[in-house]
Amino acid sequence: MTAPSQDALSAAVSDLMPMASDIFDRIRAASRDHDGVTRPAWSSQDQTAADILFGAARDQGLATWQDAIGNAYAELPGRDPSAPGILSGSHLDSVARGGNFDGLAGAVAAVVALAAMHRAGLTPGCRLTAMGIRCEESVWFGIAYVGARLAVGAMGRAEFDRLVRLDSGRSITAHMQDLSLAADDIWNQGPVISPANTKAFLELHIEQGPLLEEQNTPLAVATAIRGNLRHGDGVCHGAYQHSAATPRRLRQDSVLAVTELLQGLEALWHEIEDGEDPSAVFTVGKLFTDPDHHALTKVPGVCHFSLNFGSTEQATLDRAGAAIAALSEDIGQRRRVRFVLGEAVGSSPTPLDPGLRARLRESASRLAIPVREFATVGHDASIFARAGIPAAMVLVRNGEGSHNPHEKMAMADFELGTQVLAATMATISGAAGG
Amino acid sequence: MTAPSQDALSAAVSDLMPMASDIFDRIRAASRDHDGVTRPAWSSQDQTAADILFGAARDQGLATWQDAIGNAYAELPGRDPSAPGILSGSHLDSVARGGNFDGLAGAVAAVVALAAMHRAGLTPGCRLTAMGIRCEESVWFGIAYVGARLAVGAMGRAEFDRLVRLDSGRSITAHMQDLSLAADDIWNQGPVISPANTKAFLELHIEQGPLLEEQNTPLAVATAIRGNLRHGDGVCHGAYQHSAATPRRLRQDSVLAVTELLQGLEALWHEIEDGEDPSAVFTVGKLFTDPDHHALTKVPGVCHFSLNFGSTEQATLDRAGAAIAALSEDIGQRRRVRFVLGEAVGSSPTPLDPGLRARLRESASRLAIPVREFATVGHDASIFARAGIPAAMVLVRNGEGSHNPHEKMAMADFELGTQVLAATMATISGAAGG
Repeated sequence: MTAPSQDALSAAVSDLMPMASDIFDRIRAASRDHDGVTRPAWSSQDQTAADILFGAARDQGLATWQDAIGNAYAELPGRDPSAPGILSGSHLDSVARGGNFDGLAGAVAAVVALAAMHRAGLTPGCRLTAMGIRCEESVWFGIAYVGARLAVGAMGRAEFDRLVRLDSGRSITAHMQDLSLAADDIWNQGPVISPANTKAFLELHIEQGPLLEEQNTPLAVATAIRGNLRHGDGVCHGAYQHSAATPRRLRQDSVLAVTELLQGLEALWHEIEDGEDPSAVFTVGKLFTDPDHHALTKVPGVCHFSLNFGSTEQATLDRAGAAIAALSEDIGQRRRVRFVLGEAVGSSPTPLDPGLRARLRESASRLAIPVREFATVGHDASIFARAGIPAAMVLVRNGEGSHNPHEKMAMADFELGTQVLAATMATISGAAGG
Repeated sequence: MTAPSQDALSAAVSDLMPMASDIFDRIRAASRDHDGVTRPAWSSQDQTAADILFGAARDQGLATWQDAIGNAYAELPGRDPSAPGILSGSHLDSVARGGNFDGLAGAVAAVVALAAMHRAGLTPGCRLTAMGIRCEESVWFGIAYVGARLAVGAMGRAEFDRLVRLDSGRSITAHMQDLSLAADDIWNQGPVISPANTKAFLELHIEQGPLLEEQNTPLAVATAIRGNLRHGDGVCHGAYQHSAATPRRLRQDSVLAVTELLQGLEALWHEIEDGEDPSAVFTVGKLFTDPDHHALTKVPGVCHFSLNFGSTEQATLDRAGAAIAALSEDIGQRRRVRFVLGEAVGSSPTPLDPGLRARLRESASRLAIPVREFATVGHDASIFARAGIPAAMVLVRNGEGSHNPHEKMAMADFELGTQVLAATMATISGAAGG
């Protein structure tokens, strides 16, 4: 792509920012819930988000459609209709009372990138597709990435048929029927997206941590998606005992046992993070004794906790798993308590494509937009990557985290991210001036 | 006291065990609550307990009365009516759904000891008094030892007038009026018990820990009553953050900060207990994150905890207080969190009288009853000791702790404890046959 084409594409992205703001505002208004937004997966709210966004895509001259799953698409045709295309997008659902940009920003960016290319008179070498994905958030049906997994054929019918919305208690098929989607069509149709028809997946997403804000940088290229190892409902069973009347050697103190486990695992985390794997993270999101037994004078008999190790390195997750087992066994014996860790769940780390990451960095460099590089958390991109489609991500600066109403992505940063996304799609698709 | 008199006194105690069992059973039935008993302070239930127990005392030929506070008494006159007397007893109230023996055992033992002396034809040198005390448990009006403190004049009217029953919300005077007790009479009457009229206080109480059961011994003589230093509602404030997107150096993790504090304080405890003060105990009865924020993937922003150090040594409590302040300050700075420890409350350790302890050991030895010696927890005896009345305690073996329905004091152990109590009262009062 020539330098004048690049300038024209970036200018077109900028010209479309008022449209993008309007889309964000209309979707926010349609899914407002107290001070945040609520867009359950397969609900009227995420459907309305799709209708608004892909309606705007149609207005920009793009073809649009929806697959049997309910994922929404817009397309800019390429010079070679049979060549594998380039896909970009993110999810339309949100958590309850979450922020408007988590997911939606990436779907809007993809539509804007295609519309800008069209507006700038550029024709890609291959088909470019924008995608609004269903059900990335695990809060609705208990598991994440349902729309993406169905799209690439990475979910079996038996698992699908068991899914029930956690708050409504209704089956996933009932919720789909509300939107006139027939689940049978998913299985009749087969995978919509595959390495055969898609050569790259690019996802723009707001950063969910504070790194870009701290580093005063608008964008990052993600290096990898962390995997994790989680025990959601660990329990330590000791015995309730009188605090002053029970000497140390006879105590079965669940709290002090758990604190030793947590301090041991934190020490392991520091050792790993200072050493071979700076991507390692460790979080105890829940820690609680039984309120019915709360007393200053009672040795606590039961203590609940969760454990969550994250890393881009499988070796780290394996080491954490071994340490959890060994430490809880040792502490349990020494302190006469019993750890019940429950099922270990998690996901494998997902590397992102080195070639695509380089293209994203090069685009940013050409546009003189500063970018950082670091690992990110679970996103739809991991599903496409695991399905064999090279994938990469652009992260946009966002203070105050995600999954809450206080996200503060600036439209100026969104504009820069969308310019990098559009430039990269143009480059790797071999776009040429009309 | 001669050996035949001792034998007769112990035999009389044994003869009265059916009466004691009957008293326990009738009071249990009158205050039954689910599987336990509930005897609130200044309620129909603790009044009924007093009526049953001191009615039995009258049936045994003892004079009985109730003071303005509502504490109940039985008396065996001595040869010298003007000599300071010997007092024994314990409390009649229980916690909600607690056990029948916590407190009540000591009041019954005192009545049985006096009745046995009377029955054995022994006349003490000084007046012996059995006392059923009101409101030892802090669960009813928020503070412990109210009946004993009022009896020795160790509670001012301003503090008294502020007391409100925690569950009913009614004032202490309203609850006393329910029992036809006029609070004004307490202040008109002045302290009922003082060093001038009482030369010793002896309290039998069930053990609230597992030591005697572990040591296969029926009784212990308490060496001291532990004091304590407590923070009932400590909080650590950090920040809620995305678990995987927030690197360690930017985290403000309240849970890992609190676990470091707790492990540091436990290490201090072990050092003190292994070293200069084997009586030291440390308990964290409450530890909890906010359930509204529970998520595997969220760095916890707030963690609540309680701290409770106990010891017979004031130096240990002072050292613990200094360590709590220094550790929380240091950890707060390093981990960018803020500890709010709240008010430190507690009580000073109370030594028990060496002379009375020796008399109790000697009585047990003469009766060939094995006893141990160790420190105990807060009891009414501490109030009499602090008022300048020499005090000592007999602890009776009891599995399964206290403050729950599963107490399992054996009547055979209660009998041995009451024999030691009666023999000691006889000895120190200079009781003589006929």
